[in-house]
Amino acid sequence: MKLLLCDVGNTSYHIADAKSTYKKAVSAFNPASITEKIYYSCVNQAVLKVLQSLDNWINIADYVDKTQYYASMGIDRICAVQALENAVVVDAGSAITVDVVRENQFEGGFISPGIEAMRQTYKNISPALDYSFNFDLDLAIMPKNSQDAISYGFLKTLYSEVMSQNLPIVLTGGNAKELQKIFKNATVNEHLIFDGMKQIIKKAQLC
Amino acid sequence: MKLLLCDVGNTSYHIADAKSTYKKAVSAFNPASITEKIYYSCVNQAVLKVLQSLDNWINIADYVDKTQYYASMGIDRICAVQALENAVVVDAGSAITVDVVRENQFEGGFISPGIEAMRQTYKNISPALDYSFNFDLDLAIMPKNSQDAISYGFLKTLYSEVMSQNLPIVLTGGNAKELQKIFKNATVNEHLIFDGMKQIIKKAQLC
Repeated sequence: MKLLLCDVGNTSYHIADAKSTYKKAVSAFNPASITEKIYYSCVNQAVLKVLQSLDNWINIADYVDKTQYYASMGIDRICAVQALENAVVVDAGSAITVDVVRENQFEGGFISPGIEAMRQTYKNISPALDYSFNFDLDLAIMPKNSQDAISYGFLKTLYSEVMSQNLPIVLTGGNAKELQKIFKNATVNEHLIFDGMKQIIKKAQLC
Repeated sequence: MKLLLCDVGNTSYHIADAKSTYKKAVSAFNPASITEKIYYSCVNQAVLKVLQSLDNWINIADYVDKTQYYASMGIDRICAVQALENAVVVDAGSAITVDVVRENQFEGGFISPGIEAMRQTYKNISPALDYSFNFDLDLAIMPKNSQDAISYGFLKTLYSEVMSQNLPIVLTGGNAKELQKIFKNATVNEHLIFDGMKQIIKKAQLC
C-alpha cells in the first residue's frame, strides 16, 4: 500500500509517506500544504477543526469500530491497540498512555504524565526537586538521594503497574527509547500508530 | 511538655502550641510576630534564611542524628520517620513523600507530585485531561474512561508501591484524608511531624 498517513498529537504532526516518516511542529506546519489524499488520526482538538475543513484529509476515526473502546479515548491509542493482539502498549509522548490488549480485546488503560511534563511538575513544586530522571535507577532499592527519589516516584510506579499485566510490552512515541532503559525486554515500535492505521484502512477497504 | 512548634512547607507555616494547631500562608505570615521560643523544621529555603536570623526560632535540624538519612532529605520527612518504628509514612502535601521505616531504621523513600500538582500537570498536557481525581476508583479494574484513566495513572501506581512494603501505613499532610479513601486501612496522623519534633527535642534534652 502506498499511503500517506499522519498522526497528530498535542505538539507535532507525525507524517509517514512511502519512503520515510518525519515530524512537523503543530505551531509551524500548514496542513493545506499537503494536497494528496492523506489519512490521519488527531487528538489535538484545535488542529482537528482545521483538518475537517480539508477535503483530502481523511479522518481514520470515522472508520473504526468503536464499540470496544470508550467515547473520549484518544484515536492514537485506538490505532495502537488495533495493531496488536496481546500486549501492553506504552505510548510515551506529552502524556504516557498505557493500554492493555488481550486476545484482540481492549481491556482498558491508564494515563501518566509524560517525561517532560513530570520533570516540570517536580521542578515547579520545589527547586530542590529540579533534577532530570535517572533511567539507570536500581528499581529494587528504596532511594536515598533526591534524584533517585523522584525517579523512583515516577518510573518505578509506572514500571510495576505495566509489568503486573504479564504481557509483552511494546513501546512507542517520542520517548520510547528512554523508557526502554527501564523496560529492558520491551520492543520499540515507533510506527505502531501507523501500523494500526493501515489495518483500519485495510479492514474498511478504503484502498 | 509545653512547646511551641512549627513545620514550614513550601506553601504554609503549620504551628502547634499547647492548645491547638493552625496554618499560616508563607506569603502572608511574619515569623518575627512570634517572640517566644519556637522549634521549627523548614524545607522552604527562602523562609529558612529569615528564620535563621531570628534568635527565638530554633532549627530542629541542628539536633538530629543525620547518619541514617541523606544530605538533601527534607527535615519534615526526617521528623516524620523519627516518630515511628515500623511504618510507611505517606506525607501528602505539595509533594507526596513516601518513606519506609523498619525496626527504627530508615530504609529510603520516594517522592511523587502532590494531588493538586498532578491535577495541574494533566490539565496542562491537554484540556481533554482536565478532571479532578476519582478517589472512589476501583483499583482492580483497568479504566475505560478518561477521568478514571488519569486517576489510575496517579493513584493506583502510588497505591501498589506503598502496599508492596507490607508495613502499617501512616498518612499525614494536608491531603491525608483524601488519600485515606485509597489507603482504607491506613492511620491518619496530622501531627506526625510534631510528634517527631517532640522526640528529637526529648532525645537532645533541649527541655
